[in-house]
Amino acid sequence: MSVLASDEDLARFRLAPGFECAATACGLKRNGALDLALVWSTGPASAAGVFTTNRVQAAPVVLDRGTLAGSAARIRAVIANSGCANACTGERGLADARRMAALAAAALDARAEEVLVLSTGVIGAFLDMDKIAGGIEVLRGPAARRAAGDAARAITTTDTRPKIASADAALPGGAVRIAGFAKGAGMIHPQMATMLALVTTDARIEPDRLARALGAAVARSFNRISVDGDMSTNDTVLVLASGVSGMSVGDAEAAAFEAALAEVCASLARQIARDGEGATRLVEIAVTGAASEAQAHQVGDAIACSPLVKTAVHGGDPNWGRILAAAGYSGAEVEPERMRLWFGGPGTELALVERGLPLAFDAARASALLREDPVVVRLDLGLGAAAATVWTCDLSAEYVRVNAEYTT
Amino acid sequence: MSVLASDEDLARFRLAPGFECAATACGLKRNGALDLALVWSTGPASAAGVFTTNRVQAAPVVLDRGTLAGSAARIRAVIANSGCANACTGERGLADARRMAALAAAALDARAEEVLVLSTGVIGAFLDMDKIAGGIEVLRGPAARRAAGDAARAITTTDTRPKIASADAALPGGAVRIAGFAKGAGMIHPQMATMLALVTTDARIEPDRLARALGAAVARSFNRISVDGDMSTNDTVLVLASGVSGMSVGDAEAAAFEAALAEVCASLARQIARDGEGATRLVEIAVTGAASEAQAHQVGDAIACSPLVKTAVHGGDPNWGRILAAAGYSGAEVEPERMRLWFGGPGTELALVERGLPLAFDAARASALLREDPVVVRLDLGLGAAAATVWTCDLSAEYVRVNAEYTT
Repeated sequence: MSVLASDEDLARFRLAPGFECAATACGLKRNGALDLALVWSTGPASAAGVFTTNRVQAAPVVLDRGTLAGSAARIRAVIANSGCANACTGERGLADARRMAALAAAALDARAEEVLVLSTGVIGAFLDMDKIAGGIEVLRGPAARRAAGDAARAITTTDTRPKIASADAALPGGAVRIAGFAKGAGMIHPQMATMLALVTTDARIEPDRLARALGAAVARSFNRISVDGDMSTNDTVLVLASGVSGMSVGDAEAAAFEAALAEVCASLARQIARDGEGATRLVEIAVTGAASEAQAHQVGDAIACSPLVKTAVHGGDPNWGRILAAAGYSGAEVEPERMRLWFGGPGTELALVERGLPLAFDAARASALLREDPVVVRLDLGLGAAAATVWTCDLSAEYVRVNAEYTT
Repeated sequence: MSVLASDEDLARFRLAPGFECAATACGLKRNGALDLALVWSTGPASAAGVFTTNRVQAAPVVLDRGTLAGSAARIRAVIANSGCANACTGERGLADARRMAALAAAALDARAEEVLVLSTGVIGAFLDMDKIAGGIEVLRGPAARRAAGDAARAITTTDTRPKIASADAALPGGAVRIAGFAKGAGMIHPQMATMLALVTTDARIEPDRLARALGAAVARSFNRISVDGDMSTNDTVLVLASGVSGMSVGDAEAAAFEAALAEVCASLARQIARDGEGATRLVEIAVTGAASEAQAHQVGDAIACSPLVKTAVHGGDPNWGRILAAAGYSGAEVEPERMRLWFGGPGTELALVERGLPLAFDAARASALLREDPVVVRLDLGLGAAAATVWTCDLSAEYVRVNAEYTT
């Protein structure tokens, strides 16, 4: 499929075996769209999570951290809403998140400590608990059972498309399935942003190992995307493992499982960047020749966060000086006279800068490469062998329009 | 005057006694606008400069650093061009900058080591030295003698208005004049950006003392503004002191001189923020109650750089959660439950958040406060007695338009 999911992709999308889902419109979104989803496991599932590093943390983030720490990470369900982030809501917000977990638990004959909560939407508003309670009541009934694509749809906000991804991990004893969905369009920054992702698998895997695999996958996927440099109060990536495949992930299977999990996370991350608010294309910033992967990431991040780079891409304007300037202020150790820059991927590569100096180049071709989707920009620092790839999107006037009118 | 200078302000604007200026259109700007300016002192002037911290530094920045280090900081003139930044141009760029200084020196019977160079415009293009040489030839003649407002105009790029400011420092022995101009509209970030400023004074002051005064003034003015978080390769603030007032600045006069210099720099900085690309208003972010001034600055900077905050201001959308979220990811030690937030200045102040929790507020009034010019936002961290003010502007679709079409 293209970077974003088509309607057919969504219709075909399934969670991993052992998981069910339901979705409804409980009225949190004013337009009557789906805004509440419940994903549950038929039995206790191993779980792991990665959360925002923002010091202002939403109530569901505080709650989920505690739940995963206190429950031996055996989870039955995730209840998720859009339309309200339940952030900056203090003790009342935390009580609301707890009640949301308890209501979902009651619907499944589970305990509240076995339910995780995801919320996204406006910051600083309280959850309408009557609507949430009514919605969860509906989710209990057969009418709310939906394809997983609808659960993906229910957690979107300004996203133009739901984000879904799946992969099989070929383990020595057979394949396990990994399938997840995500949302996120604004307030996206490499250290996690209003970005929610829920990944399911039928592998049998201990929570500790699952947490390590998730940490590694997130570091090179969700932490490598930027839409606007803003980091949200709600970012959460959860993975649940039902174990119903009967296939255990131990030392021998870890690498294959981690690779498949990383593939799913990277696909979801690229979809989030591609669907950045107002975006018209995905931009892949590949930094090579760095002294370390951390420095490559730092340089790629500065370029991906630069509004001047992102507007230039939007305009198809090969104003490459902005890319070198961003590398220069990234904080990484760079030497301008060693830098080399290209637009385009393998086969279409066009060199613009050689050892810090401008090359004569075909401006029309450079402009055309900036109008492709995805756009590929490669900067070689000439300092070492490390590399990192960061994904972002172009910055359009539509981004401004969307964000100037979000709550009003 | 309002934040930006009117035509009358520009017509009245004079440099400090002892300085003359000329300006011309030498063809670097395609539209035939003024693009080359020469400011000179009738005798050797004390000089000091503050430069970009970007690791990619333009040729004139490299040259000027060396000149100020090697000339005992006695300077005769500054030659400045717009239309080309002479950045990412390697040895050839440095040779061009040197030749530009030498040509200007010859026009004034000075030495090349007594001339500083400022360039701004597109990165990665070489200076058209034929045009520069022809322009400097014109600058020698009486026809190029201009009011200082025209020199201010000649260094602008996407600025909608030239930036000018002046103040008198009342020293014990009498007043000295401080008058300067600046440019900058995009690629503006607290640690200096495509921002050029030249400040003149008739005070008699040693270069070392002048450098200290400039450092202090820049820290609380040019380093406290942000348009888009991008830091340029060319940022330079220069101050020249002709001494023709005969008034010496020693220990007794230092405080009054520094205060007046800081006032001029702060005015120029606010004008740059107000005239940010596509901006419709100035936004003042006052952070109080911080544990240290550095932490207050860090929080203010994160808020000022947040595209989500800036678009919300543009739309008059009181989406204050974005402000708290930015404070949360600023990296400063903040405690959400101690934060208090207001829109509006003294007399119009409207409280939105009390100890991290939303207050009921009049949304129409909050929206109206975000449509004032300047917009005032105050965040109290509740942690200490330190404060810092940062200036930025709103983010409009026009910013995207301007930057998507800058070189093409």
